[in-house]
Amino acid sequence: MTRTSAIGVEAAVATVDGNRIKEFIDLMASITEAGPGVTRLAYTALERQAHEVFQARMRELGLAVTVDAAGNSIAELAGTSECSAAVGTGSHLDSVPAGGRFDGIAGVAAAVEVARAVVDSGMPHQRPWRFVAFAAEEGARFGQACNGSRAASGASTLSGVAGLRDSAGITMADAMAAVGLRPDAIDTAAWDPNEWHGFIELHVEQGNVLEVTGTPIGIVDVISGSSRVMVELSGTASHSGATPMHLRRDALVAAAECVLVCDQIAQNSQHRGTRVTVGKLEVEPSSITTIPGRVVFSVDVRDVDGDRQRATARDLLSRFHAIAKNRDVDIDIKTIGDTSPVTLPARLVDLVAAEAAAHGAPYRIMPSGASHDTQQISKVTSAGMIFVPSRGGLSHVPEEWTAYEELVLGTQVLLRAIYALDQA
Amino acid sequence: MTRTSAIGVEAAVATVDGNRIKEFIDLMASITEAGPGVTRLAYTALERQAHEVFQARMRELGLAVTVDAAGNSIAELAGTSECSAAVGTGSHLDSVPAGGRFDGIAGVAAAVEVARAVVDSGMPHQRPWRFVAFAAEEGARFGQACNGSRAASGASTLSGVAGLRDSAGITMADAMAAVGLRPDAIDTAAWDPNEWHGFIELHVEQGNVLEVTGTPIGIVDVISGSSRVMVELSGTASHSGATPMHLRRDALVAAAECVLVCDQIAQNSQHRGTRVTVGKLEVEPSSITTIPGRVVFSVDVRDVDGDRQRATARDLLSRFHAIAKNRDVDIDIKTIGDTSPVTLPARLVDLVAAEAAAHGAPYRIMPSGASHDTQQISKVTSAGMIFVPSRGGLSHVPEEWTAYEELVLGTQVLLRAIYALDQA
Repeated sequence: MTRTSAIGVEAAVATVDGNRIKEFIDLMASITEAGPGVTRLAYTALERQAHEVFQARMRELGLAVTVDAAGNSIAELAGTSECSAAVGTGSHLDSVPAGGRFDGIAGVAAAVEVARAVVDSGMPHQRPWRFVAFAAEEGARFGQACNGSRAASGASTLSGVAGLRDSAGITMADAMAAVGLRPDAIDTAAWDPNEWHGFIELHVEQGNVLEVTGTPIGIVDVISGSSRVMVELSGTASHSGATPMHLRRDALVAAAECVLVCDQIAQNSQHRGTRVTVGKLEVEPSSITTIPGRVVFSVDVRDVDGDRQRATARDLLSRFHAIAKNRDVDIDIKTIGDTSPVTLPARLVDLVAAEAAAHGAPYRIMPSGASHDTQQISKVTSAGMIFVPSRGGLSHVPEEWTAYEELVLGTQVLLRAIYALDQA
Repeated sequence: MTRTSAIGVEAAVATVDGNRIKEFIDLMASITEAGPGVTRLAYTALERQAHEVFQARMRELGLAVTVDAAGNSIAELAGTSECSAAVGTGSHLDSVPAGGRFDGIAGVAAAVEVARAVVDSGMPHQRPWRFVAFAAEEGARFGQACNGSRAASGASTLSGVAGLRDSAGITMADAMAAVGLRPDAIDTAAWDPNEWHGFIELHVEQGNVLEVTGTPIGIVDVISGSSRVMVELSGTASHSGATPMHLRRDALVAAAECVLVCDQIAQNSQHRGTRVTVGKLEVEPSSITTIPGRVVFSVDVRDVDGDRQRATARDLLSRFHAIAKNRDVDIDIKTIGDTSPVTLPARLVDLVAAEAAAHGAPYRIMPSGASHDTQQISKVTSAGMIFVPSRGGLSHVPEEWTAYEELVLGTQVLLRAIYALDQA
């Protein structure tokens, strides 16, 4: 049987087509707010529209589609034997503001093409194959990333999603309800580990390791965690001409010190590997002739070492407090996200590596700097990740790019790897 | 005649009424965009609406009202003798975003009450008395302050106002035309020095010197100049997790260094008296999980010493360039405003001081940290300024406040001083 099946998967792999992948990605990129790049934020009508496209494609292939309370779309191709525990693949369809067309979508496009190749080729397999589009992976809107997969892992609660707010003050729960989802039933979205055998996500690298080393395939062994806070500094807004320097309580000068401390700590050799980013910083009242009275900024601390990640976050907070005290401004810090790094099972790393090698695709085993849905799914079942190159290492920007031949190769290795899981 | 007139002015002064001043200020405060405080920006329909209220009040008193090409509203009470050179008072009706209800408006309210007191009391006077509401004093929208009075001083040109833009990219010339003004005829707004004998503006201090010293009246001897630039830093936006620290070109980290340099230079003893403010700072793409690719910020340098003001601005620009080079980000700097400090004539300072003393009002002679229309008007005629206290030294914020009894006292001294000018 192994020999027959192996011939089956080779035939399916041979049909993976870059034009179909491109057509899907282009279509998704058209579902966006106006402005540069792609803006399709978590729990918006645009995100749901993208999910409906995915669902329609899956139904056209004859798959059964469900949408859970958290907005994850799951399509199932029935298994052909008595192995009921499924194998799966997928990624997310939401974007950051003014992001690119590949982040998340590449992995969903690969999943759609894998499903198509399996269905069209009639490739025999034994387990149920599930194809997943996760909801709300990006933390850009609500601070906390991976909310769809977090619900799938059973980690989401109504009180949790009711406590997260976007910059307009809308809670995640209200945003979910507004697009027809069911935050009050979010616990029903949890996956049953007994139904799962393994999961593999394809994603763009979002860094430049694969490009610089000329490697087409990355296999992730550890995914960075992230600690995120919003810091609010309140001083006194007043006239920029009439207020002498020594009487100022300038919230922006204090914030500038905090931004530099973030950079200095992350650049320090004691913190090698930590990345600290202030991505969002808003000044009020934002007038040329008024001393800033209030500044709110985000801090994102990432590390593959969870102890170092959280120690860095704690260190930063105490330094922020010292800066605020020294500058005589008030400070308020809210934690908006905290995710531990995850080591992916060596069995999955080895399995993907073996399939890449069998396919003749050079690969390297590497950490992921970014968070991914796989981080959450690894709590439910054995999970692995395949990276494809990002041009210039750019991501979360309109210039984000991966060549379609690289996506084809990644999808082929993905199909082989899921098939290997199916047979394992 | 002096004795009769002195009795006349005392009678008029006695009628100055805080309730009327308050009613006018409250009415003006209701003409605002939604949101905290007062937002009635330069060359908007709201600003014109405020001017129409002023014009109507003046017409009710029987004064002739004209509006010039730059949007300044000027009301004239005819003189009663052959002295054709006018005396005048007034201030501005526009605000910064989320500003207070006294900045500028206090001086217009005082002018309206002076006009009413003179008309109602039938106080004899010999010169024409002019009451002015200047347009577009605040630099918050277009960077350059005092555009109405600048036109009155003959310093405005069509090419000048066509070269200033607000943050939406609208030129001042287009904004003027959109509210029915005539930027192409702006040179016709210039005042003829031969028509003027002197001008005195009442304004809130916007600092806390009067409050701290318990002095109700300030008499300005020198007004600070200001140099203003907009700085644009361009780095590379990318993923906050996947981009290692050493490969970043973070525009916000570079901007934070610039903000701190502004503070350090102004706090340095070599720059005593200089004030440097970064009031506006905008980050793009402004996402928690994206390294800032672009930051634009304003720098406002103020000093009563013009050489030091401009040397500080030059010093800052060279340091910004060094920071940008060191951080490997691109930099572009645009000058958006440059006004010299102005020393007001000692004759006017002495005249106002004598009237304050005669009225029994404690006063102090002091510099102005803020720019004022008087700065421009001093190029046309002898000009003076009266300050009234600002509670807590706050201005350009919703909390801006001056007690109405302080406004009454200031208006009384103003009326006496204009009368003294009239008789001089």
